Amino acid sequence: MSELLDWLISDARAVDIWVKRWFKQKSEEQITAPKLLAAMEYACLNGGKRVRAGLVCASNRMASCYFNKNSESAALAVAAAVELLHSYSLIHDDLPAMDDSDLRRGKKSTHKEFDEAIAILAGDALQTAAFEILTEQNLKLTSSQKVKLVSHLSVAAGVSGMAGGQMLDLEAEAKSFDIECVRNMQLLKTGSLITASVVMGGVVGGADNVMIKALSNYSENLGIAFQIKDDLLDYQGSTSQLGKPVQQDNSRGKASYIEHYGVDGASKKAKEFVEKACDSLQDYEQHAKELYSIAKLIIKRTY
Amino acid sequence: MSELLDWLISDARAVDIWVKRWFKQKSEEQITAPKLLAAMEYACLNGGKRVRAGLVCASNRMASCYFNKNSESAALAVAAAVELLHSYSLIHDDLPAMDDSDLRRGKKSTHKEFDEAIAILAGDALQTAAFEILTEQNLKLTSSQKVKLVSHLSVAAGVSGMAGGQMLDLEAEAKSFDIECVRNMQLLKTGSLITASVVMGGVVGGADNVMIKALSNYSENLGIAFQIKDDLLDYQGSTSQLGKPVQQDNSRGKASYIEHYGVDGASKKAKEFVEKACDSLQDYEQHAKELYSIAKLIIKRTY
Repeated sequence: MSELLDWLISDARAVDIWVKRWFKQKSEEQITAPKLLAAMEYACLNGGKRVRAGLVCASNRMASCYFNKNSESAALAVAAAVELLHSYSLIHDDLPAMDDSDLRRGKKSTHKEFDEAIAILAGDALQTAAFEILTEQNLKLTSSQKVKLVSHLSVAAGVSGMAGGQMLDLEAEAKSFDIECVRNMQLLKTGSLITASVVMGGVVGGADNVMIKALSNYSENLGIAFQIKDDLLDYQGSTSQLGKPVQQDNSRGKASYIEHYGVDGASKKAKEFVEKACDSLQDYEQHAKELYSIAKLIIKRTY
Repeated sequence: MSELLDWLISDARAVDIWVKRWFKQKSEEQITAPKLLAAMEYACLNGGKRVRAGLVCASNRMASCYFNKNSESAALAVAAAVELLHSYSLIHDDLPAMDDSDLRRGKKSTHKEFDEAIAILAGDALQTAAFEILTEQNLKLTSSQKVKLVSHLSVAAGVSGMAGGQMLDLEAEAKSFDIECVRNMQLLKTGSLITASVVMGGVVGGADNVMIKALSNYSENLGIAFQIKDDLLDYQGSTSQLGKPVQQDNSRGKASYIEHYGVDGASKKAKEFVEKACDSLQDYEQHAKELYSIAKLIIKRTY
């Protein structure tokens, strides 16, 4: 973890605390399905790096500094909602009918720790919980902001976003894909939630349409770089570092950037996308330091 | 279908048309995952009775007549959102790891028509789509109303509602439950979405807190009656009428009202809950005719 940025570590801790508190409250108010709640919590609090949460918080800080707002505490709730939704997607990705993965971040995947039925339900309920959190009465945002947040997250997670990308990923196992298809799949599968995280942070911080557009450009390029780096790590890494069986995607014949560009070519591509991402924020240079730093971290990371 | 109420048939048709148009639009704007979209549409448009949609529309009519509003077209969109969410729950309920049902309303269940991975994803994306629809820009409701709708639907569908009830139902297979537990499970599994439908219709029609409370009481009692009737039909029915293997719940040892009260006792209970439901709306008697009629239909239905 030594390579991680201080602010990212700090955001990750704050979000973990928020999520833990949320589960504690839920378990106090509803004791009818404690095992389901336990499975949801298990999947959420498994040492994830909270990159999406960090993006929400950093983007919120950029917007709120620029527009002189104070929205740190709302940003944490929104960051937690995004992480819950991300956790749902990981649980379902790991299911036997999907990627069939026994491990997630070095621990048993949810269906291995509990069982398949509980894992399906826990994923379902985590997705729902994300939308519940975004519309809670004590979330200090306007109704208009809440509606925008639900809209961004649902579009990003649905058939035109993450779920659509996961579908393309399933289909990619069966056939050979060209690089345009790979990029499209990754843009949807990983990129849409990353974009939503950045944009949602902006919404919380009161960003205007011009800033939302810039954040959106930044995050689309960032999402592609992130996925290329994931492919590289998957190819080069070790199980102990990644916490999941290495070359899993590759061994199942899934298309990746490396197949098309080779290792060096893919590394170069990742750098290009990070540069494009940073260029998108040049009008907000002074306030964009954290978003620059996370973009650069992405190509340096070894985990 | 001859026993169905005219207005319910008419609402069901209108919602089906709305849903079909939504899928058509989606398929025009996003062609990246057509198979996923096809699986979602397959699960949604399979001849369901659209009871939940009818409740949204009828409750909206009660509220909008009382408060002199015009919100019919928004109510249709909201009704469709509820039906999409309901369809997601049916897809996941039918999965091999859950109820393992090959049939749904006389047709192959989604994982049989497509495959398990696609069925999981289709359910996931249908849930997301419900929240997307509720926050669409062209939905003619205030932001405050949209936030309330997302909040009601997410609380009803999540760990404290439908998903929690499904978890209890899974657990009920393994152990014997007392009647309080059965009622609790059914309240969550079926009742919460029925309650949400009625309340959401009220929200769309501009209901005040007093009316929302009355609608909530009505629908909670209605939900229990509905579930008891489902148990009775499951026990007495035939595959051709129900479109799913008969006594499936019973044969797998699931707890039901019939085990506790017997057939006659359970029938009597269903009637009592319907009466309680109708009593809740006595202050709105003039405008509540449709909600009365659907409550009475529930105990008469044979399908």
